[in-house]
Amino acid sequence: MAKTARVVQRDALHNIVKRIFVAAGCSDEHATVVADVLLWANLRGVDSHGVVRVPRYIEMFKSGEAKAQPALKTRRLRPATMLVEAGGAPGPVALQTAMTAAIEAARENGVGWASVRGTVHTGAIGYYAELAAAQGMIGVGIVAGIPNMGYHGARGAGVATSPLAIAVPSKSHGTILLDMATATIALGKIAQHKIRGLPLPEGAALDAEGLPTTDAAKAVTPLPMAGGKGSGMSLMFELMTSVLVGNPIVAPFHAKAPGGRKHRQNAAMLAIDIAAFGDPGAFTALVDETVSVIKALPPVDAGVEVLLPGERGARAFAQRQKDGIPIPPPTWEALVEAARAVGIDIDA
Amino acid sequence: MAKTARVVQRDALHNIVKRIFVAAGCSDEHATVVADVLLWANLRGVDSHGVVRVPRYIEMFKSGEAKAQPALKTRRLRPATMLVEAGGAPGPVALQTAMTAAIEAARENGVGWASVRGTVHTGAIGYYAELAAAQGMIGVGIVAGIPNMGYHGARGAGVATSPLAIAVPSKSHGTILLDMATATIALGKIAQHKIRGLPLPEGAALDAEGLPTTDAAKAVTPLPMAGGKGSGMSLMFELMTSVLVGNPIVAPFHAKAPGGRKHRQNAAMLAIDIAAFGDPGAFTALVDETVSVIKALPPVDAGVEVLLPGERGARAFAQRQKDGIPIPPPTWEALVEAARAVGIDIDA
Repeated sequence: MAKTARVVQRDALHNIVKRIFVAAGCSDEHATVVADVLLWANLRGVDSHGVVRVPRYIEMFKSGEAKAQPALKTRRLRPATMLVEAGGAPGPVALQTAMTAAIEAARENGVGWASVRGTVHTGAIGYYAELAAAQGMIGVGIVAGIPNMGYHGARGAGVATSPLAIAVPSKSHGTILLDMATATIALGKIAQHKIRGLPLPEGAALDAEGLPTTDAAKAVTPLPMAGGKGSGMSLMFELMTSVLVGNPIVAPFHAKAPGGRKHRQNAAMLAIDIAAFGDPGAFTALVDETVSVIKALPPVDAGVEVLLPGERGARAFAQRQKDGIPIPPPTWEALVEAARAVGIDIDA
Repeated sequence: MAKTARVVQRDALHNIVKRIFVAAGCSDEHATVVADVLLWANLRGVDSHGVVRVPRYIEMFKSGEAKAQPALKTRRLRPATMLVEAGGAPGPVALQTAMTAAIEAARENGVGWASVRGTVHTGAIGYYAELAAAQGMIGVGIVAGIPNMGYHGARGAGVATSPLAIAVPSKSHGTILLDMATATIALGKIAQHKIRGLPLPEGAALDAEGLPTTDAAKAVTPLPMAGGKGSGMSLMFELMTSVLVGNPIVAPFHAKAPGGRKHRQNAAMLAIDIAAFGDPGAFTALVDETVSVIKALPPVDAGVEVLLPGERGARAFAQRQKDGIPIPPPTWEALVEAARAVGIDIDA
């Protein structure tokens, strides 16, 4: 009989994650931020970006790819523009620092931009965009990483499934949150098709030879959404993040430069202060009107609700906040193992 | 026998367009900007956004939807943030003004954002993004307009095929320019399939009832790229442009408010000064390295070149700059008619 998932309450799981990161050498503050971001993903039902990532962080601390006590430095380059030298800080620490700096600069200048140089595993970037929305701003985030997605017309992995997140506050619909990768299908979805023995749609993935396949068991590389549009966005994000801060990822990866295939990420956060343009209350009321007309559109399939960006995640959040987060046995065992590696026992 | 397209040199066509707009009441400066933008699209092979649009502008001047002598006003809201009150100015005039203001603000603040309120027909927005690249900056542009594309899961037109443009300068590869709509297929492409009697791919369009169709003859509304991603981006662009400046389009359109279906557009331009982050020469050299590795990726189909964003358009540009622009007879006749409507004869 298959073991069933254990269900853990958010705060208990947050506490476990925090203890692991503190035991790994992180400050209390940094460990809290990492736990906040991972738990946010689990609450929203994006388990691929949740606590399942903990063991990899711990590995990266050991290998030196990530730093538990990073020399994190924020430099103001110009009044509205910051550079966060992450120094191998975990993504949640670096990106929260960046969005906080962007928000501060936007209050003064209307907009604020913060680039992040040299971080690892940024997690679900909708989290950082939401930080801006919570401050009455529009938040935008982009990330670049190691190529793991096809480039339109080319064989194999060309660019990364670089995500884009945009968050806008509303009056009574919560945060309208678009949080998307530039791939046409997620790696997790390919794995699900494989388990169920289902074929993939045409144009969704490449095999180990770098050629198109609909066989989920052979698929290794997702293809970009909308062909050249998805891979074009990903390439532009690499130029706007990695290349802008002089820390390229795509070029050294393909040139097979030393260390060129080591995991690392760069990012950029943009905050736009709604109050610079007018009354924030009038803005959020107009957002409500706009999303209400969208919700009221007749569905293509009778009875299948028209959804707003982020609506499904917000519902999962409310549900899991109340009922707890299901943790499959392999994820739990990996967590126990990661905890043991830093000298603590979470199974007690 | 079908009449063949006449081929007109860029400068001659530019002069014709300029004369028409001056005769319609525009200043010499504004007429020049409109001609610059329309001819840029024709040179790049994007004829749907070129001189074919002239008659509609002239109609809109007559109906009052657009203004030949607009009360265009640029307000600096905060140091890095501008609002261009377009007052019905043609898109090229309003968006060039906005990007110029964003570039100026970026020089001082690192980034600059300019919102455009109440314009018409913005044309090919890659043009404005390129203005920033020509000044050593990264340029980004987004536009919102009247719903003409499906919203994922809903019947009929829900949101607009809102474009996104991103331009990045390189050292020896020209401007790397992504200029894309959020639809999975362009209206022009649907028309081509109809003429050739070819079926559309699944999930590309809706019919007049607002339901999915693969019959090009019945298709009236393109569907968003990548389902919820394309329509999600479009909805967020409406919130970040129209709603931010208090000039919503989507809400009044669906609420059938008076004037809610009248053509109008809002936009936003962002400039990021590369020099704020380091040596611009080092940046463009790294862009070269990055796009070179992409160009060198093995193609999926042997002999089919891997293309960069904007590469096809840049080649068409060079070709048509030299050989002239082919103008199909119906387009030429419509131009002659539009010119006649403002009292000039371009056929002489």
